[in-house]
Amino acid sequence: MQNPVGRRDRPAYDRASLLEVAVVVFNERGYDGTGMEELARRLGLSKSSIYHHVSGKEELLGLAVGRALDALFAVLDEVPDPAATATERLAHVVHGSVEVLAAELPYVTLLLRVRGNSAVEQQALDRRREFDHRVAELVSRAAAEGGVRDDIDPHLISRLLFGTVNSLIEWYRPDGGLPVATLADALTAVLFDGLRAGPGS
Amino acid sequence: MQNPVGRRDRPAYDRASLLEVAVVVFNERGYDGTGMEELARRLGLSKSSIYHHVSGKEELLGLAVGRALDALFAVLDEVPDPAATATERLAHVVHGSVEVLAAELPYVTLLLRVRGNSAVEQQALDRRREFDHRVAELVSRAAAEGGVRDDIDPHLISRLLFGTVNSLIEWYRPDGGLPVATLADALTAVLFDGLRAGPGS
Repeated sequence: MQNPVGRRDRPAYDRASLLEVAVVVFNERGYDGTGMEELARRLGLSKSSIYHHVSGKEELLGLAVGRALDALFAVLDEVPDPAATATERLAHVVHGSVEVLAAELPYVTLLLRVRGNSAVEQQALDRRREFDHRVAELVSRAAAEGGVRDDIDPHLISRLLFGTVNSLIEWYRPDGGLPVATLADALTAVLFDGLRAGPGS
Repeated sequence: MQNPVGRRDRPAYDRASLLEVAVVVFNERGYDGTGMEELARRLGLSKSSIYHHVSGKEELLGLAVGRALDALFAVLDEVPDPAATATERLAHVVHGSVEVLAAELPYVTLLLRVRGNSAVEQQALDRRREFDHRVAELVSRAAAEGGVRDDIDPHLISRLLFGTVNSLIEWYRPDGGLPVATLADALTAVLFDGLRAGPGS
């Protein structure tokens, strides 16, 4: 397919809009499979025009996965109520992560596909591990305070929680008719209270 | 990397062992990114020797994803106890799917990455949809009998259940020290009974 924007009518990009297109291309073709030529073609720019904004595709990847990670850590660092229990904070982190995933879908998708073949990718994997570690700590504190079951390893619980959240990238589309609030409520309810009908229902 | 098996000492393959190697290569490089030359190199065979066993890489893909799908449908069709409720059957399907995923990890991984660019891939996607549909039906029956909460759409519950199960391909390794029975029990317990400590714990 040809880019609809011809050479004589080049679009004006800033770093944010350039990043937006680059992330779509990375997700379609894979980061490793995308060259600067392809990026330039899809942007309707020359390669040198791209280099005016960024040093190369690795910087674009760093900006993109950094955006996803910053949004996820912001949820973790948010303390809406200082009196909240660890269990309430954990539920807040799970719910908020679904909202981040929906709001930053292409950026989170790219993040979750990073495999670690470069310094930028290694750094992203390190930050993902740090995030997982902090969630597992929160699960441990929630179990210690008696809010969360203590018969399953906190790291395994943390993996199951974020396995469920992350699996949404495979099918959730924000414009598909399921409001993100409904999705986040349902996911949090199933994971915290289970699928079984309660005794009162 | 060179294949350790030299040209003069070609390994003997049957279809099953040839498939086993092909699936590893497809998962590493992507199905679309794998050519018959690469397959031949990794197998230590000539291309014509491969064509002695299969008609091409599409047949290999069909055999591989068919194996994963057959194992998943077998769990769905198993009726261990004819008197089992729909809720018990649903829990059995979730638990059994984790066991299939662990036992057939490379085949299920390949299946979950199929995107539908060929007839074989379209057929695999059709069978996946059929599986999802039958799970959603089971959720509806479980809700109708009062075993499963009815405040969340059965299709959404089905997606969340299998989102959690399928996310295991991202991190679970059968030789990594976590027994599959422990994993299947924990996943089923969290999804059905929730993360919250029960009143009696």
